[in-house]
Amino acid sequence: MGNQLGDTSVNFKNENFWYFSRMINIVLFGTGNLATHLFKALSKSSIFQIIQVYNHQQKSLDKFSQLTHITTQLNEIKEAEIYLLALKDEVIAEIAEKIPSTNALVVHTSGGTELEILKKFPHRGIFYPLQTFSKNKEVDFAKVPICLETNLSEDMEILKKFAGEFSKEIFILDSNQRKAVHAAAVFVSNFVNLMYTEGAEICTRNNIPFEILQPLIEETSNKIKVLSPLEAQTGPALRNDQRVIENHLKLLNENQQQVYKLLTASIQNYHGKKL
Amino acid sequence: MGNQLGDTSVNFKNENFWYFSRMINIVLFGTGNLATHLFKALSKSSIFQIIQVYNHQQKSLDKFSQLTHITTQLNEIKEAEIYLLALKDEVIAEIAEKIPSTNALVVHTSGGTELEILKKFPHRGIFYPLQTFSKNKEVDFAKVPICLETNLSEDMEILKKFAGEFSKEIFILDSNQRKAVHAAAVFVSNFVNLMYTEGAEICTRNNIPFEILQPLIEETSNKIKVLSPLEAQTGPALRNDQRVIENHLKLLNENQQQVYKLLTASIQNYHGKKL
Repeated sequence: MGNQLGDTSVNFKNENFWYFSRMINIVLFGTGNLATHLFKALSKSSIFQIIQVYNHQQKSLDKFSQLTHITTQLNEIKEAEIYLLALKDEVIAEIAEKIPSTNALVVHTSGGTELEILKKFPHRGIFYPLQTFSKNKEVDFAKVPICLETNLSEDMEILKKFAGEFSKEIFILDSNQRKAVHAAAVFVSNFVNLMYTEGAEICTRNNIPFEILQPLIEETSNKIKVLSPLEAQTGPALRNDQRVIENHLKLLNENQQQVYKLLTASIQNYHGKKL
Repeated sequence: MGNQLGDTSVNFKNENFWYFSRMINIVLFGTGNLATHLFKALSKSSIFQIIQVYNHQQKSLDKFSQLTHITTQLNEIKEAEIYLLALKDEVIAEIAEKIPSTNALVVHTSGGTELEILKKFPHRGIFYPLQTFSKNKEVDFAKVPICLETNLSEDMEILKKFAGEFSKEIFILDSNQRKAVHAAAVFVSNFVNLMYTEGAEICTRNNIPFEILQPLIEETSNKIKVLSPLEAQTGPALRNDQRVIENHLKLLNENQQQVYKLLTASIQNYHGKKL
């Protein structure tokens, strides 16, 4: 790890623990939901401190201006031990290109982006919190699994320690595993939310309050804490109840019919029944 | 209501409340998950009492034998005010056919089955608890929405009172609304559980513990308590991030690819983006 901490660091290793004689300095890139969450959590750390926040828009930096240094200029980035790129996927490459060469550990937070996008930096890593972040909805970060990857195994320890400031759920995944978990997350979160959207659309169209579905939604997600999803499956697809399936299809719109048919076939595929 | 309570009833109505001079008698048909839940909940009632449980198998009745009368014979069914058919969808018609004619209010519990399946009974109704019931998973019935329907409006009051013994969430739906909510439930529960199944399959195939997805699953279901599903949508489909979408497709099996493509297109359809 020594390198990216620079010549001025006086850290030492003792029985598998790193001790730090001073705070580890972080520059935070980005001011979105995740960046703001990370900033808040780090404000309580006795080991890591954010010495600067970068964003290309001054306005987005205002909320940080009383708390740390801020900049809109990539040539004003301070030296630090960790550069944390909590940026939208589509701007990571561009910002990484413009950051001056550094021995800092440069880390992005995107589960769907290659580590090699940071290849100009000798010390690079990924810090991917596996959670869905929306405006106007707080998240308890202590329970968020954080998936870590570094190009150099020697950098993993500091990244683990850093992640430990936010959560107790730390997972070290290789590139393939991270990609897989990112794809799995699309199914269990983005696509699940689409199913909620279809449920809400059907309710609205029939003058039924969407809230009627809330206890079912909650129970469906709770069930798989004690049963595997295969054990938890219920419904007309599983029972191959053609009468109910036909009745449902009649009241769906065209796109919902397509989805209903494909997912019914998928359930029957898993459970050994044929349409 | 008077009729189905028979000549011996001495109930009276006063300022919109029914008062009962004796317990209302129920015969429960079925011994499955739902029937057992209903039996337990009614054991605390001061108004309704189960005077008999029917099942065609003696063995399934054993657990009730110390608590009430039991029978495997439909010609031994006792007179009662309510016959509650907590049966599998596929046997409702057959059992209804075999029950002797009665003025009791005959009620089935299936969201996917027509009220008219009970047309031989002058007083008929539906008591549909909108929840997923699995073996080995307890459900807090007090929070389960119960959807009610009767052919005669005069029977609704007793059915509402009955449903109130189980839950505070009572909804009176017409046939079309009930069918709609049943179809919506397939999306937000059965299909959501399929998404969990796919997520688990991807994890297992890549040696990742499925538990890593639990906080995301929980947050995704919690989010829509404060945001509409449309507001809560996130992910590569919403952003139309072709790079991520292509990467995901590469690591999915054939069926998962089909599902991924269709649901991605559906999300983009809702949010005004084209593949």
